[in-house]
Amino acid sequence: MKHYHKILVGLDLHPHYDNTPLKRALDIAKDNDASLYTIHVIEHIPAYSLGQAYPSIIDLEEEIMKEAAKEMKKIGHHYNISEEKQILVMGSPKTLIIEQAEKLKIDLIVVGSHGRHGLSLLMGSTASSVLSHAACDVLAVRQMKEHNHTG
Amino acid sequence: MKHYHKILVGLDLHPHYDNTPLKRALDIAKDNDASLYTIHVIEHIPAYSLGQAYPSIIDLEEEIMKEAAKEMKKIGHHYNISEEKQILVMGSPKTLIIEQAEKLKIDLIVVGSHGRHGLSLLMGSTASSVLSHAACDVLAVRQMKEHNHTG
Repeated sequence: MKHYHKILVGLDLHPHYDNTPLKRALDIAKDNDASLYTIHVIEHIPAYSLGQAYPSIIDLEEEIMKEAAKEMKKIGHHYNISEEKQILVMGSPKTLIIEQAEKLKIDLIVVGSHGRHGLSLLMGSTASSVLSHAACDVLAVRQMKEHNHTG
Repeated sequence: MKHYHKILVGLDLHPHYDNTPLKRALDIAKDNDASLYTIHVIEHIPAYSLGQAYPSIIDLEEEIMKEAAKEMKKIGHHYNISEEKQILVMGSPKTLIIEQAEKLKIDLIVVGSHGRHGLSLLMGSTASSVLSHAACDVLAVRQMKEHNHTG
């Protein structure tokens, strides 16, 4: 049975990230003959964290965006996800994932149980979370605790 | 592809409850050739809420359990879920759903996005919720806001 037509999966881009959520999303997309979109949201850099290496936060953020885009492209290439289905945005992950899901008329959001793009992030810290107001189903995929990314 | 072998769905038993989560769970169980368990958790009655109609809280709780069992059996009969897969327990829904999921080696918990057995209940009020520690995948199924149960 085909329930889902458009699936959005939150990607972490750490080199040692457990990518079970992406693989599960790929399988569900295949089973449902659905389109799969990937999303990665980069949070703005807090001003106080800026070191000496970059002349401005804007430059640093641009650099990070560029690196993330490269990483996302690599994953997209590996899993055969076309570039227009790779969404890379900057801001609040919680807000932007929900916003993009609505914009794209997503009917299933897949997130990991841990990590920066995982469940706890979407839930926020109050019981009346964004998730319970999401206009679609949400699947939290169990994953191993995030490795320390030493790479 | 078959990811799930044992699925547990949280049931609300209100007469006007939107049963999309149950239907979704049934479909996923069918697609995955998985066993489907239903669970309903009745919360203990706070002592101060006791009126004149019942001689004791124990009696009232027993009455509620009996009514719930009847309702569950009806649903089970309708959807062809055998009685040993209908779990009815009393206590904290959050704790007991997770506990039963572990005991039964459930690999997917399905909950609604609203209602007493819905997502917000499992999430609790802190970001480090029970859900993010659940040993399995969790699917929150979008449902309409709960109707007032006037019936």
